[in-house]
Amino acid sequence: MTSNKLLQELLDRVARGDIETRDALEHLVEAFRARPFEDLGFAKVDHHRAIRQGFPEVILGLGKTPAQIAAIAQEIVGRGSTLLVTRASAEAFDAVRTVVPASTYHLEAAVITFRQQDVAPGKGTIVVASAGTSDQPVAEEAAITAELMGNTVERIYDVGVAGIHRLLGERHRLVTARVIIAVAGMEGALPSVVSGLVSVPVIAVPTSVGYGASFGGIAALLGMLNSCASGVSVVNIDNGFGAANIASLINHL
Amino acid sequence: MTSNKLLQELLDRVARGDIETRDALEHLVEAFRARPFEDLGFAKVDHHRAIRQGFPEVILGLGKTPAQIAAIAQEIVGRGSTLLVTRASAEAFDAVRTVVPASTYHLEAAVITFRQQDVAPGKGTIVVASAGTSDQPVAEEAAITAELMGNTVERIYDVGVAGIHRLLGERHRLVTARVIIAVAGMEGALPSVVSGLVSVPVIAVPTSVGYGASFGGIAALLGMLNSCASGVSVVNIDNGFGAANIASLINHL
Amino acid sequence: MTSNKLLQELLDRVARGDIETRDALEHLVEAFRARPFEDLGFAKVDHHRAIRQGFPEVILGLGKTPAQIAAIAQEIVGRGSTLLVTRASAEAFDAVRTVVPASTYHLEAAVITFRQQDVAPGKGTIVVASAGTSDQPVAEEAAITAELMGNTVERIYDVGVAGIHRLLGERHRLVTARVIIAVAGMEGALPSVVSGLVSVPVIAVPTSVGYGASFGGIAALLGMLNSCASGVSVVNIDNGFGAANIASLINHL
Amino acid sequence: MTSNKLLQELLDRVARGDIETRDALEHLVEAFRARPFEDLGFAKVDHHRAIRQGFPEVILGLGKTPAQIAAIAQEIVGRGSTLLVTRASAEAFDAVRTVVPASTYHLEAAVITFRQQDVAPGKGTIVVASAGTSDQPVAEEAAITAELMGNTVERIYDVGVAGIHRLLGERHRLVTARVIIAVAGMEGALPSVVSGLVSVPVIAVPTSVGYGASFGGIAALLGMLNSCASGVSVVNIDNGFGAANIASLINHL
Amino acid sequence: MTSNKLLQELLDRVARGDIETRDALEHLVEAFRARPFEDLGFAKVDHHRAIRQGFPEVILGLGKTPAQIAAIAQEIVGRGSTLLVTRASAEAFDAVRTVVPASTYHLEAAVITFRQQDVAPGKGTIVVASAGTSDQPVAEEAAITAELMGNTVERIYDVGVAGIHRLLGERHRLVTARVIIAVAGMEGALPSVVSGLVSVPVIAVPTSVGYGASFGGIAALLGMLNSCASGVSVVNIDNGFGAANIASLINHL
Amino acid sequence: MTSNKLLQELLDRVARGDIETRDALEHLVEAFRARPFEDLGFAKVDHHRAIRQGFPEVILGLGKTPAQIAAIAQEIVGRGSTLLVTRASAEAFDAVRTVVPASTYHLEAAVITFRQQDVAPGKGTIVVASAGTSDQPVAEEAAITAELMGNTVERIYDVGVAGIHRLLGERHRLVTARVIIAVAGMEGALPSVVSGLVSVPVIAVPTSVGYGASFGGIAALLGMLNSCASGVSVVNIDNGFGAANIASLINHL
Amino acid sequence: MTSNKLLQELLDRVARGDIETRDALEHLVEAFRARPFEDLGFAKVDHHRAIRQGFPEVILGLGKTPAQIAAIAQEIVGRGSTLLVTRASAEAFDAVRTVVPASTYHLEAAVITFRQQDVAPGKGTIVVASAGTSDQPVAEEAAITAELMGNTVERIYDVGVAGIHRLLGERHRLVTARVIIAVAGMEGALPSVVSGLVSVPVIAVPTSVGYGASFGGIAALLGMLNSCASGVSVVNIDNGFGAANIASLINHL
Amino acid sequence: MTSNKLLQELLDRVARGDIETRDALEHLVEAFRARPFEDLGFAKVDHHRAIRQGFPEVILGLGKTPAQIAAIAQEIVGRGSTLLVTRASAEAFDAVRTVVPASTYHLEAAVITFRQQDVAPGKGTIVVASAGTSDQPVAEEAAITAELMGNTVERIYDVGVAGIHRLLGERHRLVTARVIIAVAGMEGALPSVVSGLVSVPVIAVPTSVGYGASFGGIAALLGMLNSCASGVSVVNIDNGFGAANIASLINHL
Repeated sequence: MTSNKLLQELLDRVARGDIETRDALEHLVEAFRARPFEDLGFAKVDHHRAIRQGFPEVILGLGKTPAQIAAIAQEIVGRGSTLLVTRASAEAFDAVRTVVPASTYHLEAAVITFRQQDVAPGKGTIVVASAGTSDQPVAEEAAITAELMGNTVERIYDVGVAGIHRLLGERHRLVTARVIIAVAGMEGALPSVVSGLVSVPVIAVPTSVGYGASFGGIAALLGMLNSCASGVSVVNIDNGFGAANIASLINHL
Repeated sequence: MTSNKLLQELLDRVARGDIETRDALEHLVEAFRARPFEDLGFAKVDHHRAIRQGFPEVILGLGKTPAQIAAIAQEIVGRGSTLLVTRASAEAFDAVRTVVPASTYHLEAAVITFRQQDVAPGKGTIVVASAGTSDQPVAEEAAITAELMGNTVERIYDVGVAGIHRLLGERHRLVTARVIIAVAGMEGALPSVVSGLVSVPVIAVPTSVGYGASFGGIAALLGMLNSCASGVSVVNIDNGFGAANIASLINHL
Repeated sequence: MTSNKLLQELLDRVARGDIETRDALEHLVEAFRARPFEDLGFAKVDHHRAIRQGFPEVILGLGKTPAQIAAIAQEIVGRGSTLLVTRASAEAFDAVRTVVPASTYHLEAAVITFRQQDVAPGKGTIVVASAGTSDQPVAEEAAITAELMGNTVERIYDVGVAGIHRLLGERHRLVTARVIIAVAGMEGALPSVVSGLVSVPVIAVPTSVGYGASFGGIAALLGMLNSCASGVSVVNIDNGFGAANIASLINHL
Repeated sequence: MTSNKLLQELLDRVARGDIETRDALEHLVEAFRARPFEDLGFAKVDHHRAIRQGFPEVILGLGKTPAQIAAIAQEIVGRGSTLLVTRASAEAFDAVRTVVPASTYHLEAAVITFRQQDVAPGKGTIVVASAGTSDQPVAEEAAITAELMGNTVERIYDVGVAGIHRLLGERHRLVTARVIIAVAGMEGALPSVVSGLVSVPVIAVPTSVGYGASFGGIAALLGMLNSCASGVSVVNIDNGFGAANIASLINHL
Repeated sequence: MTSNKLLQELLDRVARGDIETRDALEHLVEAFRARPFEDLGFAKVDHHRAIRQGFPEVILGLGKTPAQIAAIAQEIVGRGSTLLVTRASAEAFDAVRTVVPASTYHLEAAVITFRQQDVAPGKGTIVVASAGTSDQPVAEEAAITAELMGNTVERIYDVGVAGIHRLLGERHRLVTARVIIAVAGMEGALPSVVSGLVSVPVIAVPTSVGYGASFGGIAALLGMLNSCASGVSVVNIDNGFGAANIASLINHL
Repeated sequence: MTSNKLLQELLDRVARGDIETRDALEHLVEAFRARPFEDLGFAKVDHHRAIRQGFPEVILGLGKTPAQIAAIAQEIVGRGSTLLVTRASAEAFDAVRTVVPASTYHLEAAVITFRQQDVAPGKGTIVVASAGTSDQPVAEEAAITAELMGNTVERIYDVGVAGIHRLLGERHRLVTARVIIAVAGMEGALPSVVSGLVSVPVIAVPTSVGYGASFGGIAALLGMLNSCASGVSVVNIDNGFGAANIASLINHL
Repeated sequence: MTSNKLLQELLDRVARGDIETRDALEHLVEAFRARPFEDLGFAKVDHHRAIRQGFPEVILGLGKTPAQIAAIAQEIVGRGSTLLVTRASAEAFDAVRTVVPASTYHLEAAVITFRQQDVAPGKGTIVVASAGTSDQPVAEEAAITAELMGNTVERIYDVGVAGIHRLLGERHRLVTARVIIAVAGMEGALPSVVSGLVSVPVIAVPTSVGYGASFGGIAALLGMLNSCASGVSVVNIDNGFGAANIASLINHL
Repeated sequence: MTSNKLLQELLDRVARGDIETRDALEHLVEAFRARPFEDLGFAKVDHHRAIRQGFPEVILGLGKTPAQIAAIAQEIVGRGSTLLVTRASAEAFDAVRTVVPASTYHLEAAVITFRQQDVAPGKGTIVVASAGTSDQPVAEEAAITAELMGNTVERIYDVGVAGIHRLLGERHRLVTARVIIAVAGMEGALPSVVSGLVSVPVIAVPTSVGYGASFGGIAALLGMLNSCASGVSVVNIDNGFGAANIASLINHL
């Protein structure tokens, strides 16, 4: 866009007396009103924000075709940005690696990554804790995302509250975290217990693991929203990526 | 705000050669970026919009104290605008009429009104149809709102689908409408039947009338969302005002 | 069971003086307490009931293997009873017709039938009305069931309330019914309107037809439970068989 | 209405040659098209229906003021009809008895009645069974309604399924019914068990009795809709009146 | 139907004295009562309505076989009407183009169309705005439907509220609309923001896009029903067609 | 009842030859069929059961008037049974103590008790654990019920999982239990953690404590049903009495 | 772990004077604080618990690959423990029997078992009762689990409450139970009726059997939670294993 | 506790040969097993944690009596800690100020505070943004809590998304935040839009503001959980305190 150029010209005409200031004013007011915001540098601010956050656009694979994913991936990598595709099928990866041969597919997490030199390091450690082995795919989505966003990640898996001693046995690792992601299905009690053991923010991720009255993760979600520990905030069911993004925002503060 | 004045001054200085165009450009770009939108005439657009819609701000009485309502009412009336307070208690009216003595309280609709000369007339008739006598307060909220917004309103009440002949008996009045508001609780079937009889848009308002499995209007709401008639759109439960506002928007097109 | 024989023997012994009445009493009281109810003729009453109702056991195909269905079908037909299998797949029919070659498969209704001479005729006509063409499988399940149970059935299909004139155009057929089954998905308003046109009981069947906020038939179910017409009772979603069974019970009164 | 009188006059004019048949035809066609249905005898059919059903309009007290209820009651009684007000408060009764001094208030059922000579007797007995003492208000609403509609009513109360012997002990009374109303809160299992013991239609009424996961009657409602007994149809939560109306329709067949 | 002819004959007989007026009256009253409504011109009104609305019957492909769809399509096209099949599979299109070779399949929208000369043009522009790329199929269903119904359609896609500047950047296109369709999944906030920027009716379409606590579109649906902007009405989840139909009704006013 | 007396007489008549054995048989078979079950000793079994369970009938105060409660209480106490009234208001207690002056009112638990010598002692200790102070009324209802039913009760209160060390600090008391009742609102995670620490059955009681997305105890209920610990079974929300009754049944095994 | 060995060595060094008691104290305190709990005998307690409960870890097959299941199975069997895999597919069994050739696959229950000599016998009989034939897979999961855990199991199947006589006919078997598992889908009324017939704890298992408003087992779950019988506690939908585990815990008391 | 002293003595006895190492080992193992965790310094860690977080225990006023609240308040203030009571009624404040006369009652937020010198300052600014005036009580609960916890708080109220320019007009203040709390009822769209404008974590608080299909805040809650912006995490409905606590944890990192 050449909006600055146009403004310059207008001002030049005013300076030259080629245009009445009253008329110039009218033009300016019009411009303020009608001009798309991105012409005003607004989109630039958005770019700044991407830079400040230390991470570019992420591709949610869900509901996109392999071809679409590959196309966007190529564009992102092409401009020097780190690539992250979540909820990516093996087919999607087949398409992506034809355009980004060095990309990696994390099967369990269903995530495609390709790291470039554009990510700022986080300040501390993000601990990703998960309750059961079935919660691991979501935990891995969170852990890989957090790592790609420049954070040191510590995984503490299979520490569900029904065997509380396993979690307590990992307390020395928990307390090293600057922020914790706690992933759990079924009754979703892990974040509450974890939050009571530490003094850092806990991002809770309910998973759709369970059956019957787990209602695809609703039981865990409600459990987390009603946490009796006051340091717990919650993201959508199975949203490992979202939790990692928030944890990374915090860890870059 | 004096933003135009400031711009004028800047341009004058450019015209006088008191300032370099390069510096003036910098000032302008800065203004585009940082200045609150309402300073840029954005809020004016909003005012224009109020004028185009033919109706100023409305007070939702729910969750406001009588004193708060009266204060806002005074301000609205003071700038020459028509007053509409919805979900207004008798106590709210007591407070309002101390500052707007000529205002009227519509008990059944729980609405306070005071009409001024700022409302453009709608083009056709808005029919407000309701299923049962208990739906009437919501229907009246819609009808009074629509009238205050400059529309001719025709009321067709107590024409529930269980006595279909009563509704059919009013068909000649239904077909005079430019837009119809259909208000119903319980199973909420009225809009479907009405929409099948006419060729104009039908705004459906579910009411919380009913008991047991009506779940405070959910049954009616779902019925209306699933209408087998394709000319029906829906607003929130008991939202007579919202339906009237949309109907009035349509009737002013 | 030979319980009567045993009682007879006991009484004979009492009559012969072979046993004290006090001891015989003890035996009797014991029998009253411990004996399974069906040994006491209770199951017979159940058989009587089947006869009174005019219909034997029905096979719900859902969740049974073709082999299981065929085995039960063979037993039912073998004792001279009319056969009805609901929710029957084509595979189930393949299995059934190897053992009941003369049985019929009603594809749309997913029902297998084989009529024998054990069903009493109903007194009047059962009208089966349905709202849309997609409701027809459920309506057919109801209609075929009702016919098999000895009732005269009149089908009035595709008379949804959004085209109310089609339903009204069938009013002369509606009023011939002794009991009406009204089948509808989406907003489920048909039973309310039908009930307002007649003076006989209306059995409402919500169907899972619809999408989005129909929630697999919940919208229709709630609509019917909240019917503003007071002659409507409701069965489970898609339960055409249940509606027909109740209608037949009524029509045999 | 005098529509027949008008038709008679038109025909008389045709007979007298006062009007051309072509013009008379036009008048007639116009009447067919535009005239409100009730003018065409449609409302009469409605009246016939009331007569056939053996019962006139009923007042649902819920959401009406005592004054409104009294006014409608006076009108109904004035035209010689039996009066039934459901969900009536003591205040409503105070208002009603000023205009219908001989009316009766049934406190537990919250029902006002005044019987006149316009109700046809039902053919058999309606049994009203209820599970717990807290279900009794709803059961009484059903029982009193059914009696007022001309039916012989047998009450079998406090026969919940957790003490199955009490219900079985009443089996001899259950089997005398032509139609049964089964009222239950909590898990709502009574209709299923009752239906298995008889061969007549069972109208199930869920009540809002219970706490916690009874969800104001939803648990009972779902239980009844999923009844494993196929002779059960269901009405809205706490809708004793509706159940009685349907039972009465059946009992008058 | 020849009802007018029959009436004429009756009147002629009255005029000739061939029949007593009393007997003729009886015949007439009988006719008023029993005759199907469509015989009275009622169905004709329905045809008129189709003409006034500018659009004939539409085929909802969901739950219909390709053969059924093709048959109805052939009938519609045969009588000169424009064809619209929604929720059409590729198989359905294979069947349709054997009978309507010139028909078009819109893959993303899953819509089959064939335009004929029977559709009246709308008055203004309908803007279809959508939040994310996954909402596009629903948006396209709406856009293609609206176009086929004679409207000028402007598409503004991928303007979700999390990147508000993109939406604001399109404000100059938004304000050209006479009516707006806003399509969004997830939290469904787009219609609220859009409605605050314009002064025309906004039809909101929730989509089933999302996962976890989006519950197949319920989150978006509730968000839209609770819109803090008062110009928003809502249709069923994924109901792009319905939104377009309402928008077209409005745009033809 | 004198059923045994009647049987005795019948047998005496058989013994005397006053009646044919065939006729006597007929009488007997008839008696088996038609006689109310409680006449057959069935109710006695029920009495036996009460004795075996160690506890008579309990009065649920909810929805009963003080007068009704007092009347039943008087009857229960009069036959020498221990009295338990749950969900009892202060008014109910005022009524009860006029007839059972020595009864006690437990304010927090809303329970009225009067112990008599008819309750068998349980074998071990029932631990009642609760998460927060607001769960205490439900925990007390359970504890007092369990004590009254003859059990030794140990209370471990305020051991919610957010401060896991408090619970672990009570582990030595937990492991003394033969059965545990775990009471918790909000996310309801206590039973899972407790069950992982012991090897006895845990009865989980969700409470309605919480706000917002606790939905009156649903969150806790779902959490408990989805417990990752396999020794947890659940009762209704706030049902302290029910949990105690089951725990007592187990503790008397 | 050899923690005890390490402690022994430390103490020996103290005894030998090889280490100062102050230093030894430091080591000990350190061990108490930092060492994972299982190293401190905590895990041993856990092992003790497994021994006391009479059953080792169980594999939930759901969401694990055949290879994963086989690996864990091999480990469990290798340390002499009895093997139980629930929700096991045929593929899982194929993998398991390559490592545990003598294991058995229970097709209907979807359970893999291999019994070793490490399970203590329960004290009495566990009755598993189920309502319909479709509930049998869940009932079998419960029955096989209970048997493997050392309990005598009595199966009473197909005793749904709609044919109450069948259940009553099995009353003599019901009363032999020390604990009862009652399995039912649809309205889930079986546990209530069963509990009223016995004086032992009843564990209720709702199943996902049903359609429409059974909502995948919610109706049955709610019915059981609202049981009017006070001896019923509930586990998750389809959780036959959990019910058996609790019943076995009780039966080993 | 003197556990270290006891250990010292034990080791001394070992050193002196007063006790066999085998016996000493036994004592130690016993101690590891049975000793409450807080004896092991675990509780101390908890105290450390309170100090690190910069905030002591908080009183949730909901469901506590004024006397209970005052007693806890006195204890907290007595040990030099800052006092915070949330959801406090005016009655609670009356009780509290008798024991903490200098405490303050924030009426709109329903919060009682008394600041002492024990709170560490946060690093940056916490912005509390709210959508409507009715959301203000929850926003104030958050703002006052955050201030009391040592944070600089900036309030941006009444910036709902339906008037997007008001929010955009405050963008310069938004971007000063280190963490943002976004409070909104109805459709709850504010956090999504805010998160798109900044690069810091956003804690979303749904409020119960709204009516009809807002379902007491569920609509807003779902909207926030489904936010299309990836920097949003959510707390329970109306949980202003919880959001502030998390924001403060982050702001103290």
